[in-house]
Amino acid sequence: MKQTVAAVHTLQESLPGPRAVLNDGEPIRLESGAMLGPVTIAYQTWGELNADKSNVVLICHALTGDQYVIGSHPVTGKSGWWELMVGPGKPIDTDRYFVICPNCLGGCMGTTGPAAVDPETGELYGLSFPVITIRDMVEVQRMLLDELGIGRIMCVIGGSMGAMQVLAWAAFHGDRIDSAVSIAGAARHSAQNIAFHEVGRQAIMADPDWCGGFYYKQGKRPEAGLSVARMAAHITYLSEPALWSKFGRSLQDRASKSYGFDADFQVESYLRYQGASFVDRFDANAYLYITRAMDYFDLEVEFDRDLARAYHETDVRFLLVSFTSDWLFPTSESKEVVRALNRAAANVSFVEIESERGHDAFLLDEPELFEIVDGFLGSVARHRPRDGEQ
Amino acid sequence: MKQTVAAVHTLQESLPGPRAVLNDGEPIRLESGAMLGPVTIAYQTWGELNADKSNVVLICHALTGDQYVIGSHPVTGKSGWWELMVGPGKPIDTDRYFVICPNCLGGCMGTTGPAAVDPETGELYGLSFPVITIRDMVEVQRMLLDELGIGRIMCVIGGSMGAMQVLAWAAFHGDRIDSAVSIAGAARHSAQNIAFHEVGRQAIMADPDWCGGFYYKQGKRPEAGLSVARMAAHITYLSEPALWSKFGRSLQDRASKSYGFDADFQVESYLRYQGASFVDRFDANAYLYITRAMDYFDLEVEFDRDLARAYHETDVRFLLVSFTSDWLFPTSESKEVVRALNRAAANVSFVEIESERGHDAFLLDEPELFEIVDGFLGSVARHRPRDGEQ
Repeated sequence: MKQTVAAVHTLQESLPGPRAVLNDGEPIRLESGAMLGPVTIAYQTWGELNADKSNVVLICHALTGDQYVIGSHPVTGKSGWWELMVGPGKPIDTDRYFVICPNCLGGCMGTTGPAAVDPETGELYGLSFPVITIRDMVEVQRMLLDELGIGRIMCVIGGSMGAMQVLAWAAFHGDRIDSAVSIAGAARHSAQNIAFHEVGRQAIMADPDWCGGFYYKQGKRPEAGLSVARMAAHITYLSEPALWSKFGRSLQDRASKSYGFDADFQVESYLRYQGASFVDRFDANAYLYITRAMDYFDLEVEFDRDLARAYHETDVRFLLVSFTSDWLFPTSESKEVVRALNRAAANVSFVEIESERGHDAFLLDEPELFEIVDGFLGSVARHRPRDGEQ
Repeated sequence: MKQTVAAVHTLQESLPGPRAVLNDGEPIRLESGAMLGPVTIAYQTWGELNADKSNVVLICHALTGDQYVIGSHPVTGKSGWWELMVGPGKPIDTDRYFVICPNCLGGCMGTTGPAAVDPETGELYGLSFPVITIRDMVEVQRMLLDELGIGRIMCVIGGSMGAMQVLAWAAFHGDRIDSAVSIAGAARHSAQNIAFHEVGRQAIMADPDWCGGFYYKQGKRPEAGLSVARMAAHITYLSEPALWSKFGRSLQDRASKSYGFDADFQVESYLRYQGASFVDRFDANAYLYITRAMDYFDLEVEFDRDLARAYHETDVRFLLVSFTSDWLFPTSESKEVVRALNRAAANVSFVEIESERGHDAFLLDEPELFEIVDGFLGSVARHRPRDGEQ
């Protein structure tokens, strides 16, 4: 599939859903000091904002997620990534809450990212897009809420990279949120996770069709490299037991080994499919920038190497959830956050859910997760501060 | 670095050490049924064969290892991969034992592999080389020993893929070996391990310089792809705690983040170095074939899905060693073998060594490993059957 500047831009422009131009179209200062603008943020909402604007739930999506949390995805036609969690009568109940999910800064579903037009050149940014951080993602979300006239958020919730944003929200804007739900997250990206991301980035950058990051104007896309990056990442989203029970050593559509390099094993065929389908919906440069933002994330360092300081005197109610078989964002990482929150005397609940599904469990049918989030949100809604109470 | 047919071939031919042409230069039948020949096997030996030829230790190397177990490597100039284990006074004591290590079939250090000349075409095999298996590797080792006039082996020992060969030796030629030492091994390759190998292969095959496997005659090498494959694999050789204690989130030669895609973190720089240095010593096609052989390995399936049958009435003494933090060949895989050996009433010792170093521990300074191998070999040497005793 060949894409030209116009084609990529048109795709982004034609995606359904509202979008907001932040800061009156003026550039905003990023954490790196670089200026970026105008910044557009694409988002989706569900439910109704109540009279006192106290029922807002902000969902932060993960690395390859987007704002199409539920309903048919405009690019893939598949259902949303959190259908089980969000909707009428679901834990994040759109009959009760006003739910909003923006596409993250640097993303490729309508929010300003490397596949957006650089106003200075009139061409797509490519690698001239500035490196962004998790905090930058949070800042543009905050500006979006300002734009929408929303002061307080009842709950900010997310898994994986979404959880990083949740923890950053609570650290930098704790005064604007009632509660924070971090699922399968961490306050920093581990060395092993940086290593896996670096493999993915190198795979993309090794693809000649990457063209030094300026493939859009060449009418090319580094599909092979992005596909390999996705395959490597996908292994880390699953657990060994999950791979074993899902595929074992079963052969794919054949009775015996082919003695060749076709996908003999089901697990190979599955990975190839994951890689191939990913390139149809994701921009390779966006993958580079977002993985980099995750790698840079380290809240502890930003608070004098004491995570408790990030949550000093916080009034935010916290819920942290991890999964036993998640080796990408293992329970130990959530526990580090819980320890820091306890040192800060914060109100924190922590649950480790027994699951064989690895990191991906946060996206899957995990009844205990739904029950816990349902109960937590209900409790937060009942106890949220009324106007004038604080 | 450009390589022509002649250059690749000359490199292989010029490597130091003996080599043997097997089966009088006639083709040999592979497990797949394909015929391959002539097959040359390059090897190294240390120590002296004793009068009754009862002091032979056969070392089987791992995926990216070779026959240069100790001493300066002819290509890299670095020391051997098992200097700590092999040599005078070392656990595999070259003052006592006659130690032999062949380059595996499919390898790229002088043994016939995809970078060897196909006698039918006069060109290097490339992807017309037949797919080989762990059992094929063992069969050519057996033929080499025949060629050298060696009947019995006191001990066959190896780690990782080497351990797979050890377990295959004991299963198919148990009557020729006194003992078998499997370190960080498994009787089958897991779904997760197949998945990681598939990522590496796809990275190589995605590199346009791979040229469908026939890059030699194009004067090209898929260095970028092979480097990415090595980087992904390298993460699996280490443990998360090892990566954390070795690198943490430390920055590489800089005081603060660069906000770019250079190797900011030490772990990135380390991985890039691992990838870049690997391509100088390894052939990408050899990597494809050898990983495939590992993926295909499943002893249980070859013995009617009952691994105990592989070792029915065996007289071989077994030692199995695993490492606590090895997640590539975890303790559970070794235990599966131990259970099967116990069902077969075999003589088996099993040790799980406490180590933070992950799979790579078998190559590193692990005193407990050396003590155990030293003691085991000494005991086998004392108790080995004399001529005529069995």
